[in-house]
Amino acid sequence: MLEELKEKVFRANLDLVKHGLVIYTWGNVSGIDPETKLVVIKPSGVDYDEMKAEDMVVVDLDGNVVEGRLRPSSDTPTHLALYRAFPEIGGIVHTHSTYATAWSQAGIDLPNIGTTHADYFHHAIPCTADMTMEEVMGDYELETGNVIIKRFEGLNPMDTPAVLVKNHGPFAWGKTPAEAVHNAVVLEQVAKMAYIAYGVNPGLTMNPLLIEKHYSRKHGPGAYYGQN
Amino acid sequence: MLEELKEKVFRANLDLVKHGLVIYTWGNVSGIDPETKLVVIKPSGVDYDEMKAEDMVVVDLDGNVVEGRLRPSSDTPTHLALYRAFPEIGGIVHTHSTYATAWSQAGIDLPNIGTTHADYFHHAIPCTADMTMEEVMGDYELETGNVIIKRFEGLNPMDTPAVLVKNHGPFAWGKTPAEAVHNAVVLEQVAKMAYIAYGVNPGLTMNPLLIEKHYSRKHGPGAYYGQN
Amino acid sequence: MLEELKEKVFRANLDLVKHGLVIYTWGNVSGIDPETKLVVIKPSGVDYDEMKAEDMVVVDLDGNVVEGRLRPSSDTPTHLALYRAFPEIGGIVHTHSTYATAWSQAGIDLPNIGTTHADYFHHAIPCTADMTMEEVMGDYELETGNVIIKRFEGLNPMDTPAVLVKNHGPFAWGKTPAEAVHNAVVLEQVAKMAYIAYGVNPGLTMNPLLIEKHYSRKHGPGAYYGQN
Amino acid sequence: MLEELKEKVFRANLDLVKHGLVIYTWGNVSGIDPETKLVVIKPSGVDYDEMKAEDMVVVDLDGNVVEGRLRPSSDTPTHLALYRAFPEIGGIVHTHSTYATAWSQAGIDLPNIGTTHADYFHHAIPCTADMTMEEVMGDYELETGNVIIKRFEGLNPMDTPAVLVKNHGPFAWGKTPAEAVHNAVVLEQVAKMAYIAYGVNPGLTMNPLLIEKHYSRKHGPGAYYGQN
Repeated sequence: MLEELKEKVFRANLDLVKHGLVIYTWGNVSGIDPETKLVVIKPSGVDYDEMKAEDMVVVDLDGNVVEGRLRPSSDTPTHLALYRAFPEIGGIVHTHSTYATAWSQAGIDLPNIGTTHADYFHHAIPCTADMTMEEVMGDYELETGNVIIKRFEGLNPMDTPAVLVKNHGPFAWGKTPAEAVHNAVVLEQVAKMAYIAYGVNPGLTMNPLLIEKHYSRKHGPGAYYGQN
Repeated sequence: MLEELKEKVFRANLDLVKHGLVIYTWGNVSGIDPETKLVVIKPSGVDYDEMKAEDMVVVDLDGNVVEGRLRPSSDTPTHLALYRAFPEIGGIVHTHSTYATAWSQAGIDLPNIGTTHADYFHHAIPCTADMTMEEVMGDYELETGNVIIKRFEGLNPMDTPAVLVKNHGPFAWGKTPAEAVHNAVVLEQVAKMAYIAYGVNPGLTMNPLLIEKHYSRKHGPGAYYGQN
Repeated sequence: MLEELKEKVFRANLDLVKHGLVIYTWGNVSGIDPETKLVVIKPSGVDYDEMKAEDMVVVDLDGNVVEGRLRPSSDTPTHLALYRAFPEIGGIVHTHSTYATAWSQAGIDLPNIGTTHADYFHHAIPCTADMTMEEVMGDYELETGNVIIKRFEGLNPMDTPAVLVKNHGPFAWGKTPAEAVHNAVVLEQVAKMAYIAYGVNPGLTMNPLLIEKHYSRKHGPGAYYGQN
Repeated sequence: MLEELKEKVFRANLDLVKHGLVIYTWGNVSGIDPETKLVVIKPSGVDYDEMKAEDMVVVDLDGNVVEGRLRPSSDTPTHLALYRAFPEIGGIVHTHSTYATAWSQAGIDLPNIGTTHADYFHHAIPCTADMTMEEVMGDYELETGNVIIKRFEGLNPMDTPAVLVKNHGPFAWGKTPAEAVHNAVVLEQVAKMAYIAYGVNPGLTMNPLLIEKHYSRKHGPGAYYGQN
């Protein structure tokens, strides 16, 4: 069932290790099948070294396990909430990558201060609000998805395909699981460069014209980067 | 004698190198046999490249060498003090890993400011008090154990399985030598992320609800992370 | 056509990966043929893993593609502007390397505060001015070259063969593509060391005598470093 | 001639690369033969990849090349000055390693704030004074040695076997070339940890008792670390 998507989600999970975004069993990638609306996701707490493509778990958008002998990632309800709210998304990544997690712990938006950021993310990477006692004590992972969705009110999730969950860590997404991983890697890099840049000059400013120029150079009808 | 434990302690020592926590002959791992209460520990000052499982030294809880042709780690009395005081411990690690050692040199507790920390350590990683002249000039390594034990008065060492020895470096522990190494790796990572997070926002705050939620997600009767 | 230069430019592009200056398809190297004034440059948005020497694109100084089945780097007009303005240049590199990009985002010159810097760059690495709306909305990549050229008024581009484009990232150059890569690697290293040094001592000072001594030790008629 | 020492110096130079202390042709190691007082040193500006043991250059303490077809390191007069002034030294290393160089650029002593430092260096790593015009314009590399020697007036170079040359970078030494490299690696690590520690707590303090204890645990008649 969904063998091709399982292989893609499996490869995307291994890419998290290859790019240094995760250690041990941390992190997870999922992908959604656009026709059946079934979601393929990494199993919970399994070593990357031992994981196989067939270990990927298939769940429906309500969280029922449709196929798979292992339990899905404990963060599955967060992924599903995002797929339900943002139908353009094809893949989602969650990591505790060093710099993006540090910004999440700092609890502030990651500002767009360079063309590297603007090449991928139109705006600052938003940081979510503090979760309430009801949210934490209730269906916590679902509510984590809900605070993300609330934070994106008025924002286009495909223009800025990542978020910092306060005191926790980043989620990133894209049209495919591979693109979601790509965005997670770039997020970690821009989080690192922003940390250093503010260390060099706490009063730095960004030219807003460059944000529009670089974002549109790679995205939208006038894009002219690459071979397509 | 205790061949299986020797192999585990040997592997755990090599894992310190693999995870980048030690250079040269720095660092050491020990494990205790729950039946005989004998402790297996790395020999002092031996290169990791040349070390073999049979080089591990067996000592009793009073520090007498029971088996082994090499001298045990000079930190052995610290390990033994912790095993005597904390009977739940099955393995202990000492490193001079970069960020955890820097926090030890800074001389302050490493605060719990993220879910990565809370997934493994219930509270701040405590930093010990300054050692007195009597402690330093006396049985120094034993007294190092004693200042750790004193710092844990009122704390459960299994809830927060690591400590920063002031001006020195971290010790971490667990139910097995492998778990102790795992905790030492996570400690290094959370020390790094906390350093960066405070650089981004010196006034950051942690949501205490998240600490309880994440710690209980992985520990205790209601745990639901992983496959068990 | 220009097979030897294509091979050199190709190798120089791969060296960016080897030295950790680029991820994904970021960064680009070009080289100019001194006789024909034709420029060989990396194609736009092609994976380094799949790139071959024959994928390099040949353009003339007006930007016309003379040979090549792929589109040249989107930064080609910047490279060409620099070749037209600085005839001593044989190779140009653009990266988003971590520390040099962070200084670019900080928007200030990278000061010459050590002999490592002075061994390669006579002066501070200049940071360009903010680009105007006309520049960003016009022929943006050409204008990026023009703001660099304007910043070098009164400076010798071969004495200080690198620049920080504000809010964007570094360009470096040299007599050959390989030398341009070498300078880009050194730029990243001095950017990192300067960041750390100012963290240690925000009030640090540089001995101007050392700048002259070290620069002249490696450059000009009295140079005595190396075997030549 | 001195084939064994050439091999040791050659290996020690390669170890600088292995430990990440140098890039390109930066850095150099020398060793002295205690009987003949001849010094073996790396040639100037030769790639580590292509270097062979027989490329090492033999010079006498006055700087005359006794054997070798290549020019010795441009820093040779600094090495020779140290060998003449500190007869206990058997090997010397010079690098531009990242954190030790950053402290040198910061221009202040690297304080002894942890037992890692105290295990190897009795005191703060001293930073030299600004060099005068006479020193820089005169026999510069010899005078670099002289400012180091002047800075060690009243200090024992074997107790604290390293120095930071202001605005330049570190030298480290030891009883052998291998020990000099070992000390250079530790210097880089303690420089990194001190940078981070002061970032965590600018007002940190060191327990002076720990310095004496740890230094004497590894050095002098009462040493008890290791197998000897």
